[in-house]
Amino acid sequence: MDIDRIRAARARLNGQARRTPLLSSPFLDELAGRRVLVKPECLQHTGSFKFRGAWSALSALEPERRARGVIAFSSGNHAQGVALAARGHGTSAVIVMPSDAPRLKIENTRALGAEVVLYDRGREDRDEIGARLAEERGLTLVKPFDEPEVIAGQGTTGLEIAEDMMALGITRADVLVCCGGGGLTSGIALACEAEAPGLRVRPVEPEGFDDTARALATGEVTPNARLSGGLCDAIITPAPGKLTFPIMQRLCGPGLVVREEEALSAMAEAFLRLKLVAEPGGAVALAAALYHGEELEGDAVVVTISGGNVDPAIFAQALAARSNAG
Amino acid sequence: MDIDRIRAARARLNGQARRTPLLSSPFLDELAGRRVLVKPECLQHTGSFKFRGAWSALSALEPERRARGVIAFSSGNHAQGVALAARGHGTSAVIVMPSDAPRLKIENTRALGAEVVLYDRGREDRDEIGARLAEERGLTLVKPFDEPEVIAGQGTTGLEIAEDMMALGITRADVLVCCGGGGLTSGIALACEAEAPGLRVRPVEPEGFDDTARALATGEVTPNARLSGGLCDAIITPAPGKLTFPIMQRLCGPGLVVREEEALSAMAEAFLRLKLVAEPGGAVALAAALYHGEELEGDAVVVTISGGNVDPAIFAQALAARSNAG
Repeated sequence: MDIDRIRAARARLNGQARRTPLLSSPFLDELAGRRVLVKPECLQHTGSFKFRGAWSALSALEPERRARGVIAFSSGNHAQGVALAARGHGTSAVIVMPSDAPRLKIENTRALGAEVVLYDRGREDRDEIGARLAEERGLTLVKPFDEPEVIAGQGTTGLEIAEDMMALGITRADVLVCCGGGGLTSGIALACEAEAPGLRVRPVEPEGFDDTARALATGEVTPNARLSGGLCDAIITPAPGKLTFPIMQRLCGPGLVVREEEALSAMAEAFLRLKLVAEPGGAVALAAALYHGEELEGDAVVVTISGGNVDPAIFAQALAARSNAG
Repeated sequence: MDIDRIRAARARLNGQARRTPLLSSPFLDELAGRRVLVKPECLQHTGSFKFRGAWSALSALEPERRARGVIAFSSGNHAQGVALAARGHGTSAVIVMPSDAPRLKIENTRALGAEVVLYDRGREDRDEIGARLAEERGLTLVKPFDEPEVIAGQGTTGLEIAEDMMALGITRADVLVCCGGGGLTSGIALACEAEAPGLRVRPVEPEGFDDTARALATGEVTPNARLSGGLCDAIITPAPGKLTFPIMQRLCGPGLVVREEEALSAMAEAFLRLKLVAEPGGAVALAAALYHGEELEGDAVVVTISGGNVDPAIFAQALAARSNAG
């Protein structure tokens, strides 16, 4: 993995992925006690940064191989990213999802043109189903994060951050990244290393799912005790990836950990101050900037909002918590 | 009013106003039965397009006059736009608001550095208070829409729409604009006339407050029966302006009228499909595109989302209506 791969991904994504802006609000600056620059990947196609990695991976395949189709395991943002990227390449996508995945997510993925294959979590083995389908049909697996072209695609986010920060004349800042398997975090870290070395990337995770923060602190990768169940489902993974962790270990500052209530409160601030819809997992970096300022350094901080695919009821819950707080 | 004034405003707004993108979603295209391109002015500074007109007006003042400060009457988006534009110019703003305005709006306007002067709607005359303050302190009144430099500022939105549509290769489309007094509508219409004459601007209003649609249909300006009370408060005015109406009459297609429930439903679609927060008045153009397609022409439609300053409780109501509808 190196910067050239990210630059090549950017050329392939040009005109396909959205070039998202850096947003700000005087109210957030006031609340955080420093300048807050927000990279809203919720505005990316399919509502999350995952489209970048998916497009990067599909566009990097040999045309013949790509034409046979791709397969992914996901019930979330990666599924939609791969589905839309496949459609954009005129090829087919099979998405393997648990049969108890939210109906809306299944429908959305189908509406984007993908074939959804459901499996029973209790009785069937996801990997077996995937391997059989891939072999039968010659499909290529698109992994969610531990895959060079996916990391390269997510890293294009970092190239844009570096450019916009240079234009603002800000050369030193912490860059807080919502972190699951580390694809976005490691990609942005590589981009900043090359283009804006004064920007220090730091992963942000929800409490109870801080596998990356622990691994960065101890040097040892140990899985989270729980594997699911949090509100921040979009960024919950058992452990950082084999490719992503060494990159983060080399380049990232200490991880930050926020509580779910802080993520919900940050969602309400994004609603009020930026007019953006953030999902709980997508709001953890903003939460760290707003409520963990004492753990940050510098007069400015960059935060990613990694996605906005949130259930209306959970969004309403975030707004209600804010209203109750006055 | 001519295009040169809009171009001059654009030069003054460069680096100050946000250059908002044109967003889209395959789901909205499907629902509307044509391509839907969304201009999200809710992402503008202070959460609405009003910042453009305010910055344009303040930046056009002679420096000595500007230094004495400005005054505006508004409890809504114009207030915040003028407050932030004044702060950006290092001058003072007095905003005259009714004492029963929502506390959050009063606080936000103060937080942006303005002096808020409250008056009692029942006992005091707003214009008298304003005239006295203006004379005593030498303040310049910034009108919300019927003012050439304000129209010019709002018209910069149209220059951006024209540019982005040309880049997409779309030369013919209806451009639906959320319409109150007509500053945004007339400004965009002038910009399109000059830069993309195949784009036809059409005002969109809420039912019961369709003063502009009626005036365009009959050629006569007659005030709305009600002057307030709708959910779409941000775009409710008694009648189109003396400057804005002749421009709209010359350049705009027929107005469209949507129901409040349609505006709420469009807010839910903007949440789900674009990850944007729209206020009810800011969602009427999207509502027209989604639910009044038979009144439109062409394979593509542009819609403005004029603002996103909505009370959390009303936003939750829009989401709940959507959930109940399945």
